[in-house]
Amino acid sequence: MLVVHKYGGTSVGDLDRIENVANRVAKAKEAGNDIVVVVSAMSGETNKLIGYAEHFTKNPAKKEMDMLLSSGERVTAALLSIALQSKGYDAVAMTGRQAGIVTDNTHTYARIESIDPTAMQAAIGVGKIVIVAGFQGINKDGSVTTLGRGGSDLSAVALAGALKADQCEIYSDVDGIYTTDPRIEPNAKKLDTISYDEMLELSSLGAKVLQNRSVELAKKLNVKLYAKSSFSDNEGTLITKESNSMEEVLVSGVVLDKNQARVTLRGVSDRPGIAAEIFTMLAKANINVDMIIQNMGTDGSTNLGFTVPQSEHENAKRLMESFDHDIQGMDFDEHVCKVSVVGVGMKSHSGVAATAFTVLAQSNINIQMISTSEIKVSMVIDEKYGELAIRTLHEAYELDK
Amino acid sequence: MLVVHKYGGTSVGDLDRIENVANRVAKAKEAGNDIVVVVSAMSGETNKLIGYAEHFTKNPAKKEMDMLLSSGERVTAALLSIALQSKGYDAVAMTGRQAGIVTDNTHTYARIESIDPTAMQAAIGVGKIVIVAGFQGINKDGSVTTLGRGGSDLSAVALAGALKADQCEIYSDVDGIYTTDPRIEPNAKKLDTISYDEMLELSSLGAKVLQNRSVELAKKLNVKLYAKSSFSDNEGTLITKESNSMEEVLVSGVVLDKNQARVTLRGVSDRPGIAAEIFTMLAKANINVDMIIQNMGTDGSTNLGFTVPQSEHENAKRLMESFDHDIQGMDFDEHVCKVSVVGVGMKSHSGVAATAFTVLAQSNINIQMISTSEIKVSMVIDEKYGELAIRTLHEAYELDK
Repeated sequence: MLVVHKYGGTSVGDLDRIENVANRVAKAKEAGNDIVVVVSAMSGETNKLIGYAEHFTKNPAKKEMDMLLSSGERVTAALLSIALQSKGYDAVAMTGRQAGIVTDNTHTYARIESIDPTAMQAAIGVGKIVIVAGFQGINKDGSVTTLGRGGSDLSAVALAGALKADQCEIYSDVDGIYTTDPRIEPNAKKLDTISYDEMLELSSLGAKVLQNRSVELAKKLNVKLYAKSSFSDNEGTLITKESNSMEEVLVSGVVLDKNQARVTLRGVSDRPGIAAEIFTMLAKANINVDMIIQNMGTDGSTNLGFTVPQSEHENAKRLMESFDHDIQGMDFDEHVCKVSVVGVGMKSHSGVAATAFTVLAQSNINIQMISTSEIKVSMVIDEKYGELAIRTLHEAYELDK
Repeated sequence: MLVVHKYGGTSVGDLDRIENVANRVAKAKEAGNDIVVVVSAMSGETNKLIGYAEHFTKNPAKKEMDMLLSSGERVTAALLSIALQSKGYDAVAMTGRQAGIVTDNTHTYARIESIDPTAMQAAIGVGKIVIVAGFQGINKDGSVTTLGRGGSDLSAVALAGALKADQCEIYSDVDGIYTTDPRIEPNAKKLDTISYDEMLELSSLGAKVLQNRSVELAKKLNVKLYAKSSFSDNEGTLITKESNSMEEVLVSGVVLDKNQARVTLRGVSDRPGIAAEIFTMLAKANINVDMIIQNMGTDGSTNLGFTVPQSEHENAKRLMESFDHDIQGMDFDEHVCKVSVVGVGMKSHSGVAATAFTVLAQSNINIQMISTSEIKVSMVIDEKYGELAIRTLHEAYELDK
């Protein structure tokens, strides 16, 4: 079996942890697998280098940042290869370039355009363990590029796709995907399996285990993805394509996102293009809008609500004031949160949303906004009820069973 | 004028020093020059990374070491480019590969085979300051290689040659080449000019300002080399080809090398090949032999003397004992040192060596071994007279004038 492992910054945070990773990789090799390992920079390294650059300017050139930041992963790759060699394993370290990763020209947030796996395949063919510096590639001009925060996940999935690997295992300090945050609900259970789409909803909703772009790519390339811990031998969670058996499970998880502020605009005039104007202005100010809901008031006028990150609340408020003449009333609340229920089972089962509304009402939690997708129900509520809502929903859907 | 600057580890040892280097480079650019800058890793970085690797094994693979160690220079290059950009200068950082440096396949001690200056010339052509990560290149397979300790000097000289630069300025924490070590003789004077050959003799004799291979390459490519300090505006020393005016100066400098142990073999049998046997055995044991002298004894037998580093003294002693039957007597002394007088003027002036012997005799310093080249006289003496001999010779050749 050909397996791609990826170890994050915490898993390779010091020399003893790199030794631990070497032992895990050696064990997987001994089990008869071909192994390609993608590594991040040692934890803290990337932030240290960013701090160095910001000593000179708050806005360093992105091309230079890529040369600077790509060095951390190279160090880890070389050290892990040395650690494996010291145990008698034949290993070879490769940069993103040497592994054949070509990206577009968007420095610090490049997209992978192609991967030529020839060099990796040649090394695998003679029994070598291949260690690849994650997070990086080169563009067509030969300049080093990086793939953005969490980019090593993306490297791992893309290499797994290019190599047609049997599976891709993403190692971190968390042993899988949980039905909810165990710090909020101690009865949270680790999921054995979850679909790509559920994982996408969960990770965009704030579960930080896997980078969103890498889940999207895994779905596109149909890469079997495992989220595992590098500190235990637990099975982890398999993220894979949707199967019929998955639909028997109504809800996979519930998630809390506390970084939300609500803006409600009442009686927005029916002048054409007013909504477009509002959201274009927010986008230009780099304010990331999350939920948007719009409905008609009883008098035929339109009510428009949306949420923004709490840090952008004041900016959003200031911008909205320029629409004074088009809007009857505005209402801002930075003390809200978003609770979401995610599950592919919703597609074929009715009543999932109704259950959520019912149990929250029973706990006297008022729902301020509702937004749904095929596999998700999100509700904006008062911030102080966030944890209670998560525990209530976790119990209602029997996620602890 | 096209000028190559090279800044060593101490000159870029922290962020303030990188800022200082940026100011110096900016000033050179403002003076109307085109500038290419070669940088080392921040001081301490390379040793830190070597320590990391040695955590796993005392003998890490050289290919892996090259990927590991080359990261330090990339960090400095990116940071210096960012520092210059923050001051409004157009700068671009390049790795060894991007600067077009191709080496042979000898990892950790590669030789530069070719340089394609196209990318650098294109950047210079549009007014950019080019910052190159020193010490590194790639081999024909595309693997990263490094050039050995002090390799950034070599990068700078090689780039200056490939770019046909007007001069190459090597910056360190010393402001030039001195007639002798100022810690021994406070009247030591900085030289304005010195020939490549004198510099080669001086650097192989222990003056650590310039890496020997880089001086050899500068001589071969006829690169005008300056040794300067990054912490002062002193003129520095020009290392260039020999001129007639240089020959008017009898002696350029005197040097002390304390890391010497003497081995004397008396009455070596005249069996053919015995000397070859002795030195082959020493070479196989990786014992670096420095001076070798041989002469006939009064009885027709041969006396053979040589020096080795003090750390190898015991090993050399042990090896020589296996020649017991071929040698009448052996004499070992690890408390010796070598004093050397260097100057191209010796070629055309007689009596330089005689002066050395005379003044040392006047100070009651016994000379144990003598070895001469066209531009050098080296003498092995008792270690405790080393500093006295240097001061005596410095005065005798009027080097303080």
